[in-house]
Formats: sequence, structure tokens, C-alpha cells
Amino acid sequence: MNVVHVDLGSRSYPIHIEQNGLAKLGPILKKLFSTNRIQTNHAVIVSDENVAGIYLTQVADQLELVHDKVDSVIVPAGEKTKSVAQLESLWQKLVELESDRKSTVYALGGGVVGDLAGFLAASFARGISFVQIPTSLLAQVDSSVGGKVGINLPAAKNIVGAFWQPECVVIDPNVLLTLEEREYVSGLAEVVKYGVIMDTPFFNYLENSIANIKAKDPSTLSHIIKRCCELKAAIVKADEHETSGRRAILNYGHTYGHAIESVFGYGRFTHGEAISIGMNCAARLAIQLGLAEQELLTRQTALLTELGLPVECPADKHVELNKAMKRDKKVQNGVLMLVLPIKIGHVELVPSPGETPILESLHCE
Amino acid sequence: MNVVHVDLGSRSYPIHIEQNGLAKLGPILKKLFSTNRIQTNHAVIVSDENVAGIYLTQVADQLELVHDKVDSVIVPAGEKTKSVAQLESLWQKLVELESDRKSTVYALGGGVVGDLAGFLAASFARGISFVQIPTSLLAQVDSSVGGKVGINLPAAKNIVGAFWQPECVVIDPNVLLTLEEREYVSGLAEVVKYGVIMDTPFFNYLENSIANIKAKDPSTLSHIIKRCCELKAAIVKADEHETSGRRAILNYGHTYGHAIESVFGYGRFTHGEAISIGMNCAARLAIQLGLAEQELLTRQTALLTELGLPVECPADKHVELNKAMKRDKKVQNGVLMLVLPIKIGHVELVPSPGETPILESLHCE
Repeated sequence: MNVVHVDLGSRSYPIHIEQNGLAKLGPILKKLFSTNRIQTNHAVIVSDENVAGIYLTQVADQLELVHDKVDSVIVPAGEKTKSVAQLESLWQKLVELESDRKSTVYALGGGVVGDLAGFLAASFARGISFVQIPTSLLAQVDSSVGGKVGINLPAAKNIVGAFWQPECVVIDPNVLLTLEEREYVSGLAEVVKYGVIMDTPFFNYLENSIANIKAKDPSTLSHIIKRCCELKAAIVKADEHETSGRRAILNYGHTYGHAIESVFGYGRFTHGEAISIGMNCAARLAIQLGLAEQELLTRQTALLTELGLPVECPADKHVELNKAMKRDKKVQNGVLMLVLPIKIGHVELVPSPGETPILESLHCE
Repeated sequence: MNVVHVDLGSRSYPIHIEQNGLAKLGPILKKLFSTNRIQTNHAVIVSDENVAGIYLTQVADQLELVHDKVDSVIVPAGEKTKSVAQLESLWQKLVELESDRKSTVYALGGGVVGDLAGFLAASFARGISFVQIPTSLLAQVDSSVGGKVGINLPAAKNIVGAFWQPECVVIDPNVLLTLEEREYVSGLAEVVKYGVIMDTPFFNYLENSIANIKAKDPSTLSHIIKRCCELKAAIVKADEHETSGRRAILNYGHTYGHAIESVFGYGRFTHGEAISIGMNCAARLAIQLGLAEQELLTRQTALLTELGLPVECPADKHVELNKAMKRDKKVQNGVLMLVLPIKIGHVELVPSPGETPILESLHCE
């Protein structure tokens, strides 16, 4: 088994990455709870319709090995579930299930379930235990690690939330075999991101592993997930609450990407697809500004394309995209800060050069 | 000026207790922000209709000395304001006001405003700065110190929330002169509580200061508020997140009190009145169980009564009260834990002796 430690002082936790890990959840948790002296007799699994249909019974059976009482709540799949209304209904559900400070919330699903269930745990009875069991590639390599949890308001994504670290994360790469192809490919955008922002050898490895990645080769998947978790854990350790600026590099492609998601509607592009397009826009801007060489964009475009990701921003709505980018959370004292690549394996935080270069960066040549 | 330091490592903060402190808010904050290198250009004051009518202009004027932009949001007065609907509307309001991670929320009001605005700050953009300006005695001596923030669900009080420490607390005892008499007297219940649970000399001081307390003598008020803040700060330091059990002693009278509030409806008794009755029930139970002497109850009853607080539990609904107490958050492994006084200045956490003694303790002799 691969274990990555997220080192955050009293909030430290392990990430277990193991083939068929769902079937070993009980023993993994039993050991963790006894080591950390965590008393928790009540489990509440939060999952979505799609994931629950495949994995709920197996997970509940395993949790019965460590909890006296195991309940589950199923929410609709999709980003709309990260709403105040859904959160309120989950709060009430926890009360109905007689949850208390010793209850543990399990997030069984992708990023939406992890974010929602994580904030549920952060805010119920002033914060209860929480375990992430991410079932999408995106959640396994990114959103389940680092403690960012929350919901959306109609006017702003992820604006309500907390930093709330889980007791542990259990990742079973096998679940990716039942993941929808488009979701799987979308998750690869974040995988490529890690290579570009901080790990040249990992980017090279990805370039050399395309066939294995597309075939979901088990050992390739395990290696990729483990490396991404290690990289994310290092950044989160350096900047748990996003105060030093270090954590901002994880947002490579995201200022463009969030604008693309919001302007084109959340249905048209998945998060990963929008990030893929966004990374290419950011790379194009870096080249325009003389910060990076053309080769960087060429290699990044080739890798994303071969993995099946879109890289071109639709030709319409560029003005709206530019406007949406200005509403980004990384605006500091009125200046938008962009994460731009300098070379494969290194990015920097750069103040926006203004409207014209940004509009140009949206155009593909 | 009196300053009490709440010592919580990186989350430490000062409580400023000063006559006419509201008029000096700007300079107090200016010094704090420059010492702690806090950058915050945007202030959002949350207040209720009653308090805002008297103090909003003065506070906003002071905040303009330290922030570029000062906004305010007024909520209805009363416990019903601690609702999901109100919280949602405040989240949206913060977005409309273009709040970001550098915004600071000011809670200008009593416990309801402090709890609601505190959780707003804890949950917006994963947690932003927060300053408490408590205007009721209850909030000044208790709820504004210690970081407990949250809202109610219809089925459970304070069940949604967080531990979120403020940047500072500014207490102006003069505001108590405009507080409704019943609210002022209610706050005295928590003041008496501190004497009983942990400070014999303070209880003696209260016994000897009744006329000054009733007359709201400024130096008596300052002394009382300061001492209560010191006592609460010591407990919060020892048990910030209510994990060791130490913080539980603050709930003296509260298991009975919460049941009284809930069974008789939140309109009939104020929180302080219910706590006053609850403390007398708890003292009666301690005597029944042979844990305390009759003198304790006699002195406690005399002090509470002379301060104008009720001490007798209404004769009906005792069965409902007993049931409601079993739903208390201090149930551990199915056993209700009660905070019972041993002598003036000392309480202990005792497992419930069962239904009959509890029912007896509800009856006055």
C-alpha cells in the first residue's frame, strides 16, 4: 500500500492509495482510529446517486466493522448539489439521525460530494470528524487533499466554506474503471497541471505514458495518483490556509478556467476541460509576455490533446471572459494576479498585464 | 483601559474593556491591525435594528478611520435571526458588497448578532477576520469571548457553527445604560454563574455589590466584565475546542436552562432567566445527592433573587423538561453529564442520577 502523509501539525493525516482499497476500508480505519484515539460510534456516508449505486453497500459493510451505527444520505449528482438548500437539508438530516460530536461524515464520491460533505462536517456541532473516499480522478489527485471544502452561491462558486482537514483519505484507483470516460479525461487536466507547475520529471513521465494512462493501467494510475498527492501535500503543508501565496500556484489555468465555466455555463465544459483550455491560454500569455518559450506551449498542447482534452477557447464571448476573470478571488488591491508558466515544472504569480494581452491570449493561433 | 488577553497561540486576541470604548474604536483597531500586520480595507458591520438605531453611525464613523470602505447590514433583533435563511441572505449580501478575503466582519450587538456574524465570518471565503463589539451584558461577559459562533436549526439550537476566534473584542460598559432592564438583569445570571463555578471571592464581591450592580455603577460594571472575561479566557485557553471537558463547566445551569427555554418556548424566559432557574435546579440536585450543603443553595438563591432573577421552575411540564434534558449535547455514550456545584467556587461534571432525582430537583420546596 502507498501512504502519503499530509503534514499539518495536529491536523496531519494519511492518504492511503491502494488497489481495491474500498474492500479494506474497515481495517484501515480501525488502525487509524485506534492509533489516533478517535472515538466515533456513528458514521454518516454522504454519496451521490451514481456512486452510491455502485459502491454504497460495500462501503457501508466495511464501516460497520468500525462503527456501531452506519447511516447514509444520497444527494443528486452534479455541481448544483453544492447549494445552500442541499446543505441545509443535510444539516437537518444529521439532526434526524441523532448525530453528535462523535459522529463521522464519510464523503463517498467526486469533488462535489467531497466539498459538500466536508463543509457539512466542518459546520455541524462546530466541526466533526470527516473521511474522504474520492471516486473521481479529479477528487483523487486534487480536491480531496488539502482541506478546502464548501458550497456555491448563485453569484459565486466556492464562496461559502472552510479549511477542514479530514482524518484520512482512502483512494482506490480501481474505482476509476467505473468512472465515465469524460470525467476520467477531465481529471487528467489537473494531473498535467502538477507537472507544469512543479515537477519536470513527472511531466516527462506523463508524456511517455500516454498509452498506459488511456488504458487505465493500474500501476500507472497508482503512480500518478501518489505523485499528485505528494505534490499537493507539499504545497498544502507550506501554505495550509492560502496566506503565503504558495498555494496559489495550484490555480494554474483556473482564472481562465473558472471564467470559461461561468461564461459558457457549467454544462458545456467540465471543470477539467475548462482548466485544460485555461492552462493553454495562460501559457500563450506567458509567451506573449516573453516569460516562456514556444516549446512549453507546444509540449503542453500536445500532451493535453493526446490525453483527449480540449485546448482551444471558443471564439465567441471573449469580452465576457475577460470581465469574468476580473472577478477572480486572486484580485489583490484591485490587480488580478495570474499564475503563468516560466518553463515546464515552474510557474510564477504575475500581475495581469491588462485587457489587450488577456484578450489576445484567449485566441488560438 | 483594561485589556484581557485570550491566549490561544496563533489565534490569541485582546479584549478591550473601556468606558466610552465605542468612541475610541478607530484608534484601538488601528493599533491592533498595525501590530498584527492585518490588511483589511473593507468593513462590514452586522447589527440588529435596535442596536443599529443607537450606535451604528458612531461605529461606522470610527471604522472609516481604519477601512477604505465601510458597509453595514441590519438584521431583525431576536433569536429567530440565527437561522439558515438569514445566514444565506448575509452570505449573498457579502458577495453583493464585493467582500473578499481581506474584508472584516464586525458584530455590533448582543449574543444573537455575535453568533450569526461570527459564523458568517467563519464560513465566507473559507474564513475572514471578525471583530466582536458586544452590546448586551450577556455577550460582554460570555458569548463574545471564546470563539463559539453559529446558528440554530428548527430542531436544535446552535447545532450549526464553528470555533472561530475574533481578531479582538471591544467592550464599552456604557452601552449597558441603553440596554433594556430585563436584558441587563438576564446577563447577571451568567455573571453569578462564574462566581459559583470557579471564583469564591468574586461571588462574595457580587453579594456585597448588589446596590452598585443594580445602579449600573460604571466602575462596578467594568470590574465585573473584566473578571468574567478573565475567567472565561482561562477556561477557553485550557479547552479551546471543548475536547478536554474543562469548558463544560461553563454550562452550569444550562442543561436545565436549555430545556426550560425549549419546553416553555423561547419567548417566555430569556436565556439568562432560564439559566438562573437552571442553576437553582442544579444546586438542589447537588444537595439531594449529598454533594453540596444547603447553604450553597441559600446563598445562590438570595443573590439571584436580589438581582431580580427568577429561580423557580414553573410547576407544569416537568416530564417534558426531563425529556428535553436527555437531548442535551453533553450526553456521552448515552449518559447525560450534569455540571453540579460542590461549594461556592467549585463545580464538577457528574453523570445524571436518573429520572426521579431530576424530576425532584425541578420542584421548589
